Amino acid sequence: MERPRHQGMAKNTYMRWRLPLVCLLWEVAMIVLFGVFVRFGPEADAHWEEEKKELNLTSDMENDFYFRYPSFQDVHVMIFVGFGFLMTFLKRYGFGAVGFNFLLAAFGIQWALLMQGWFHSFKNGKILIGVENLINADFCVGSVCIAFGAILGKTSPIQLLVMTLFQVTLFSVNEYILLNLLHVKDAGGSMTIHTFGAYFGLTVTRILYRPNLEQSKDKQGSVYHSDLFAMIGTLYLWMYWPSFNSAISEHGDAQHRSAINTYCSLAACVLTTMAFSSMLQKKGKLDMVHIQNATLAGGVAVGTSAEMMLTPYGSLIVGSISGIVSTVGYVYFTPFLESRLHIQDTCGIHNLHAMPGLIGGIVGAITAAAATEDVYGKEGFIKAFDFTGEYQTRTPSVQGGFQAAGIVVSLLMAFVGGAIVGGILKLPVWGDAAAENCFEDEVYWEVPEDEESDAYHMHNPDKPASP
Amino acid sequence: MERPRHQGMAKNTYMRWRLPLVCLLWEVAMIVLFGVFVRFGPEADAHWEEEKKELNLTSDMENDFYFRYPSFQDVHVMIFVGFGFLMTFLKRYGFGAVGFNFLLAAFGIQWALLMQGWFHSFKNGKILIGVENLINADFCVGSVCIAFGAILGKTSPIQLLVMTLFQVTLFSVNEYILLNLLHVKDAGGSMTIHTFGAYFGLTVTRILYRPNLEQSKDKQGSVYHSDLFAMIGTLYLWMYWPSFNSAISEHGDAQHRSAINTYCSLAACVLTTMAFSSMLQKKGKLDMVHIQNATLAGGVAVGTSAEMMLTPYGSLIVGSISGIVSTVGYVYFTPFLESRLHIQDTCGIHNLHAMPGLIGGIVGAITAAAATEDVYGKEGFIKAFDFTGEYQTRTPSVQGGFQAAGIVVSLLMAFVGGAIVGGILKLPVWGDAAAENCFEDEVYWEVPEDEESDAYHMHNPDKPASP
Amino acid sequence: MERPRHQGMAKNTYMRWRLPLVCLLWEVAMIVLFGVFVRFGPEADAHWEEEKKELNLTSDMENDFYFRYPSFQDVHVMIFVGFGFLMTFLKRYGFGAVGFNFLLAAFGIQWALLMQGWFHSFKNGKILIGVENLINADFCVGSVCIAFGAILGKTSPIQLLVMTLFQVTLFSVNEYILLNLLHVKDAGGSMTIHTFGAYFGLTVTRILYRPNLEQSKDKQGSVYHSDLFAMIGTLYLWMYWPSFNSAISEHGDAQHRSAINTYCSLAACVLTTMAFSSMLQKKGKLDMVHIQNATLAGGVAVGTSAEMMLTPYGSLIVGSISGIVSTVGYVYFTPFLESRLHIQDTCGIHNLHAMPGLIGGIVGAITAAAATEDVYGKEGFIKAFDFTGEYQTRTPSVQGGFQAAGIVVSLLMAFVGGAIVGGILKLPVWGDAAAENCFEDEVYWEVPEDEESDAYHMHNPDKPASP
Repeated sequence: MERPRHQGMAKNTYMRWRLPLVCLLWEVAMIVLFGVFVRFGPEADAHWEEEKKELNLTSDMENDFYFRYPSFQDVHVMIFVGFGFLMTFLKRYGFGAVGFNFLLAAFGIQWALLMQGWFHSFKNGKILIGVENLINADFCVGSVCIAFGAILGKTSPIQLLVMTLFQVTLFSVNEYILLNLLHVKDAGGSMTIHTFGAYFGLTVTRILYRPNLEQSKDKQGSVYHSDLFAMIGTLYLWMYWPSFNSAISEHGDAQHRSAINTYCSLAACVLTTMAFSSMLQKKGKLDMVHIQNATLAGGVAVGTSAEMMLTPYGSLIVGSISGIVSTVGYVYFTPFLESRLHIQDTCGIHNLHAMPGLIGGIVGAITAAAATEDVYGKEGFIKAFDFTGEYQTRTPSVQGGFQAAGIVVSLLMAFVGGAIVGGILKLPVWGDAAAENCFEDEVYWEVPEDEESDAYHMHNPDKPASP
Repeated sequence: MERPRHQGMAKNTYMRWRLPLVCLLWEVAMIVLFGVFVRFGPEADAHWEEEKKELNLTSDMENDFYFRYPSFQDVHVMIFVGFGFLMTFLKRYGFGAVGFNFLLAAFGIQWALLMQGWFHSFKNGKILIGVENLINADFCVGSVCIAFGAILGKTSPIQLLVMTLFQVTLFSVNEYILLNLLHVKDAGGSMTIHTFGAYFGLTVTRILYRPNLEQSKDKQGSVYHSDLFAMIGTLYLWMYWPSFNSAISEHGDAQHRSAINTYCSLAACVLTTMAFSSMLQKKGKLDMVHIQNATLAGGVAVGTSAEMMLTPYGSLIVGSISGIVSTVGYVYFTPFLESRLHIQDTCGIHNLHAMPGLIGGIVGAITAAAATEDVYGKEGFIKAFDFTGEYQTRTPSVQGGFQAAGIVVSLLMAFVGGAIVGGILKLPVWGDAAAENCFEDEVYWEVPEDEESDAYHMHNPDKPASP
Repeated sequence: MERPRHQGMAKNTYMRWRLPLVCLLWEVAMIVLFGVFVRFGPEADAHWEEEKKELNLTSDMENDFYFRYPSFQDVHVMIFVGFGFLMTFLKRYGFGAVGFNFLLAAFGIQWALLMQGWFHSFKNGKILIGVENLINADFCVGSVCIAFGAILGKTSPIQLLVMTLFQVTLFSVNEYILLNLLHVKDAGGSMTIHTFGAYFGLTVTRILYRPNLEQSKDKQGSVYHSDLFAMIGTLYLWMYWPSFNSAISEHGDAQHRSAINTYCSLAACVLTTMAFSSMLQKKGKLDMVHIQNATLAGGVAVGTSAEMMLTPYGSLIVGSISGIVSTVGYVYFTPFLESRLHIQDTCGIHNLHAMPGLIGGIVGAITAAAATEDVYGKEGFIKAFDFTGEYQTRTPSVQGGFQAAGIVVSLLMAFVGGAIVGGILKLPVWGDAAAENCFEDEVYWEVPEDEESDAYHMHNPDKPASP
């Protein structure tokens, strides 16, 4: 079966030496750096038996593994199946969606273990890792998966790896500024993951603007079954988001509370998304794009505040608003961004992550500013905001101010970082495809010839049984 | 691409104002009611630090979150992916299956948190919620997902929301009668979830009987890939059912035992289902309808007894029988119900939930009646059946009798409730489709034009490369 | 729609009486054997309340259920969704892939509970089971799923059941020799599951060699969406592999460490697989076969050593190498095995399980031999290798030798067992299909007629709107 339209490709997308070189060199670098720096943390090291005695722990259950591993696995599914399959909605870019997401995340988690490790788990010259590091590495990569959504279908795998390298680095710096210097709370990452990741990706796609992208417009849509594949991604993100927002919260009530708030917010978000999806379409029909994406905004929008005393009804309110904002965004903002601002946002991450991420940051700042000892209890108040050591005199309203500052820092980091990385990705050496070949797996993948319909529709005399 | 056959729709399925109105009004109602009533339970509240001291708990691990959260997430997957994808088997109703299930469940869990909260978690004017409430809300919604199976493809999203509102209410009343008034054990919900949900749904579909449904018969089947999507649902239900049946059992041995019994029952069920699927078909070929559904009957049928000392071989027996009953049901009962009793049961919930639910109730009654202190141990006996307080003199055989009464109450509730709700849903204001448009996503969804086969089969001279 | 090419089937594939007979007889046998032998272990029995006091346990959390149940569920997903969907890559064998895997695993776990129970959990004439037995049963069946990969599409369901019966038996014997007689560590099963399972399957497929298999060559490929279904399997195997390798490790640091090592190994494996997939293809394009399979080799290759102090960088090295070996295997070894050695390996298990399994065994032997008290700590050293009782004088280098012996025993068991079982399966009574009907669901399944493309491509004048 000849597919002549690809023979005249305008750009060199040949990956044979470039992609293997990047993958192998970088993996060797990872091995060397891990060899020099990474070791097991005390709870994963065989010396734990002795550690346990020193810490007077009576049970293996006190190992952090049992507090966090189930949540870790849920987060892991969100990164690889959730994001991967969410992006398979395009009719002929399923391999790229799930495969490149797999590639960039697998590299990203290694680099994130190092970057975050240097900032947060560095002791006596070694990075000591445990299950919490694995979760944080997945989180960090989550911000790259988000940015990937903006440039889906328009970039080569090498560009994605290069972006991952830089974005993980910038993420870790931004995270360090927020969590350590500003002493900000952001367990579910409204600011560090969503706001940063989304505006970073939007800036990158702005720099990589393709004026002739309408040449591949016929491939930018979905087909019936690709929309169902995408729903697998949606649902796993939606179901496991309570684990995402609670995974690295303090043991006990904080994890418990985070899960409940997120559950409530997401439930409300589904209803307002359905309402506005129907309302904003002339014929009143529901649009799978909204259902696949805007239903998740509720998880993003409580990312900062879920572990606080947001309360279930507060969560419902936040979830309801974010579903509305996100759906409205898909209908009105995305076309505007593309036509006026030249921001081509394949998956609409502006609606799913950027705006809800900002909402999440703001809600977090307000919730923190409104905190009282009465609501949290004396000890709970200190524990919830970690008002100890040099921060023991910080008041809720000051905390609210720092939370707000965290949003601004994340935005600046995203715009500046995105502009620089976008510039690097624009260099003509990374093997991205021409506009007419975007959103098309055949550029980088061996694609099977779909003879199925021929082989099984033999009653059509115009189709030979074995082509 | 014109699809003229829909232009002459006999009924008004226009959702643009009705669906948004219902969704938004009800979500506002949820927010108000949550604001008035719902607060964090002690284990999710920031006061937990103080609570812990009062209760003399030495570890955060004692927070119920760690006992139940992994099971909660499994149950959550069953409700949204399990039921959602199980119903995608229809060739052109995948969006409706997974999307409407998403909608009704997201609304249902909010309403269930309130309804069940008023009955079971109400203290000083507030509903105090924790992870067990989330599980119970998911359970309650499970009974709505079951009923949805009977009317799949024949109802509008508004009808589904109306049904959810009433069914959750009735479920909670029935559950209260069984668990609190009759003091019945039903951790996996053979009676409260499956028997009630299925007979409720069957009654509703009977009331909504469509005499001309054969007009959409061509759409009632599956296609190859839709059957594979459905298998995703089947497998997640099958794999996580041990979590379903053990999620709200007592800590320790009861949860452990429930999981083992359910695992055994489900394994046996697969073999008898395969056996009868092949045996009852002239050519001896396996039928995906049976594999997708009857293999799950084993989980339903130990829903009441799994936490009791049913024993592994008892579970194998129950699972074997339920697989047979369910498969026979698909082959003989479903056609009979449709032609004679005018019960059009799209997914065959009579075979998967109704009959196995009854078996489950009966097995539970027998297992309870047969309980002895010898088998359970003195303390285990009291703990297993909660024979404390006013029930400390209840004997196993009396308990068996009450268990049996629970079945009867559930059936009555289902029939009466289903008849009333069915009557409400029959009102001509909810926007359901005409018979010839049933099982067709295009009525309520924006459906992509599947040009894939055109774009990729260019060797067929009759199909233009770019249509 | 007539499909005349199947009317002249050369072989009798009629299952109507044979399959039900096998399923039902064997299920009855299971019930009888379970009735005689299987009981709840102390932690799942209602006597646990008393047991707890005897053991001086202060919390229900000490029940093994809470240490292992989350991992169990992940493993369960790997066996049923992971293996099941991984094998749906064939264009017309998705029902068989996921359905037969379901059947053989459901039978296999029952038989494995018995076989492994007799060897490892037998007390006073009873097999006492708990969550660890469920995990081990799943593991055992995992080796059958692996072997199934070699003969996928070429065998009848009865053959698969017969193979399962024998393979589970041999697996249990081999496992007993390794774990109990040789006192070998193999928590993730590089030797017992992967090496044994793969070489067993390869031997069976060698015996069942079909010289005319090219007659069904047109069905041996994938179609676009079948490759995406397979990616569901791949990702669930990849994501949950840390749970697989840690599921039955000692509580505490060993489980924690296993998960980290496996996470690292798998991440590295993805990069080298992508590199070599691109490098070994003339046009530099990525091949879904490699991405679906070789990315998993990293999990196999640390199956023995993950719970040891392999260290994160050690894991990266092992993962990197195994990804390369596996990808090279798909490109060069699989064609060689087929053309020269007459080993027709449908899924390429030689590359995904056999070679990485051997690597895993060898890495385990080396890591054990290199162990020192300095690295593990005095107590950790003894605990990690269980150097107690009669083994308290065993040195690491001796342990390394026994580990190596474990590889040899597993290989011998696989070759001899596979040859015998292959011979049994070659008997002409099991109803396998003729060569031209291999890889074709229609032989054993009711397959829906895919009228979808007709019904929805009405603009093609050659296709009637309602066929």
